[in-house]
Amino acid sequence: MDAKGPVSRSALAAFVERTFGALGVPQQDARTVAGLMSEADALGYDTHGVFRLRQYVNRLRDGGCKAAARPAVVSETMATALVDGDNGLGHLAMKLACDIAMRKARVSGIGWVGVFGGNHAGPAALYVRPQAQEGMIGLCAAVGSANHVAPFGGSDILLGTNPIAIAAPSGGPDPFVLDMATTVAAMGKIKTLAQRGEPMPEGWMVGRDGKPLTDPARRDDGFLLPIGGAKGYGLSVAIGLLAGVLNGAAFGADVVDFTSDTKSRTNTGQFVAAIDIAAFVGPAAFTAACQRAFGELKASSPLPGHDPVRIPGEGRGARLAASDTHGIKLPAALRAELDRIAGEFGVAPL
Amino acid sequence: MDAKGPVSRSALAAFVERTFGALGVPQQDARTVAGLMSEADALGYDTHGVFRLRQYVNRLRDGGCKAAARPAVVSETMATALVDGDNGLGHLAMKLACDIAMRKARVSGIGWVGVFGGNHAGPAALYVRPQAQEGMIGLCAAVGSANHVAPFGGSDILLGTNPIAIAAPSGGPDPFVLDMATTVAAMGKIKTLAQRGEPMPEGWMVGRDGKPLTDPARRDDGFLLPIGGAKGYGLSVAIGLLAGVLNGAAFGADVVDFTSDTKSRTNTGQFVAAIDIAAFVGPAAFTAACQRAFGELKASSPLPGHDPVRIPGEGRGARLAASDTHGIKLPAALRAELDRIAGEFGVAPL
Repeated sequence: MDAKGPVSRSALAAFVERTFGALGVPQQDARTVAGLMSEADALGYDTHGVFRLRQYVNRLRDGGCKAAARPAVVSETMATALVDGDNGLGHLAMKLACDIAMRKARVSGIGWVGVFGGNHAGPAALYVRPQAQEGMIGLCAAVGSANHVAPFGGSDILLGTNPIAIAAPSGGPDPFVLDMATTVAAMGKIKTLAQRGEPMPEGWMVGRDGKPLTDPARRDDGFLLPIGGAKGYGLSVAIGLLAGVLNGAAFGADVVDFTSDTKSRTNTGQFVAAIDIAAFVGPAAFTAACQRAFGELKASSPLPGHDPVRIPGEGRGARLAASDTHGIKLPAALRAELDRIAGEFGVAPL
Repeated sequence: MDAKGPVSRSALAAFVERTFGALGVPQQDARTVAGLMSEADALGYDTHGVFRLRQYVNRLRDGGCKAAARPAVVSETMATALVDGDNGLGHLAMKLACDIAMRKARVSGIGWVGVFGGNHAGPAALYVRPQAQEGMIGLCAAVGSANHVAPFGGSDILLGTNPIAIAAPSGGPDPFVLDMATTVAAMGKIKTLAQRGEPMPEGWMVGRDGKPLTDPARRDDGFLLPIGGAKGYGLSVAIGLLAGVLNGAAFGADVVDFTSDTKSRTNTGQFVAAIDIAAFVGPAAFTAACQRAFGELKASSPLPGHDPVRIPGEGRGARLAASDTHGIKLPAALRAELDRIAGEFGVAPL
């Protein structure tokens, strides 16, 4: 593997755009999704950025995801909408949902938009950060694009990592941005440990025998554990109801594993909401209270062996600026995968 | 302590009502709060029902909570409202918020109501169950009424247990009702273990030295741990923003411990939301999908040593029916406390 330097965000986006174009995605849509995917990498959400291109192109190639999709609103009220993603790239429906949620929030104080017929859409953070930039609180959650979790006390894999994201303007350089799976560990981290031959800590997974599973190579013999046991399980089901069932999207046994099955419609469900802070305490009072409270949290003496307390989202702006100044470093394995993709679909490599 | 039999829900409510009446709470308000408190006990939320009467009467007696309060809407939009609890009993503002959220959801698809100037209002479940009964999804969260939690990696107690509740109609005998603190254990459980002289499991609390704390009598030397470490910490801060900061309510160091300080206004913050399922997939499709998915979850083979998988909220209806048929069993210590309260405020005992 030859060592290559960092790439610019625009070059990365252009590569992704032409790859999607080669697979029949209309140019404007290809540009939108490529922009969001490279933004994810630039912000440091690298497990949910261009790293996912292989999964997306395989599904486009095999018909599991529609290239020329037209996500659209199928019903709406003053403050809500339901979007059919038309089985296109998930980012398209989510970008639309985010825009509609903010527009409705400006009029009605809150906007809540559900999505069905979607697909994996990268990090949920992408669909809550715009709200924070517009003086709103953003909420987003998704039914995970594969099941890896058993219900609490059970042994059948029926739930996903079902992530939730919440963002708010903070008055500081970075908005508050929480973007978390409802499991102790993400499957991506476990795959990384398996590649390195390193064990997992106890508490990440259990086997079907109910005993701790620490060998990441044996991950298919067990399942991910929810945070807080029964609590994380309950939260995961609640997200399944809000992001999946409410929108007529998949939840439970009808969730399609979007990596192993590249041909079936996933009917992925998500929601995006925006709450206009102006309808409540108002933006100035909100950010002043954030600055005071976040200052208190950050001033807390670290426990022995811990780094200083962080606020979720802190440092993402600096990461973005560094990515745009110095470029984005892609791991050699990812770079090689992108080169293979370029070869397969006959597009100019990065 | 003489053994006494179960009490009827109506007798319990009548006792609470006359106690509040003796403290100057207007009769209709006293009846509303007493009804909700005894409903909590009848449903089995016994740590958040009449058990809390001592805290409420002490605050009413000492001026920390206003007896003749008039919670009211101070601003609203099509889909949102902000309620000032006027520092009255917390249940009053929350009942109002719940009613407004449902009314707005019927018109706008969703209603989201924030509360400031509130107080402890019992279990959050009380303010999401009505939505489920009306074919809606209910959401509720609160800034905890005392701080017991440090930020992840820090050692200053700046966060509460910040609970969140989510309910939905299920098509079965019980609605889905999740009502959870964002900490591994609730402070009430730890106090119970201390009374019994039993140790806590590791993982519930840590000391200021960062080491596990298992002696519940030493609980003031440490703090509660959030579920999932940094994730539960982030979730707790997010709830603080949505339930506290957004509404101009307390969050962080300005949270008043409502038990130890009976004289100060707490400015407790909460929110209640209602989402009309008719604005999305529709109630019939929603409950059909719930029945299918919940059936799958419940059919999952239990892990060794575990009971069958449960759906959050399952069994509450049977518990309520049993309470109404056989009466509510009050622990002897609580019964004795209620008798002391009766004596102190000159009302007829239970």
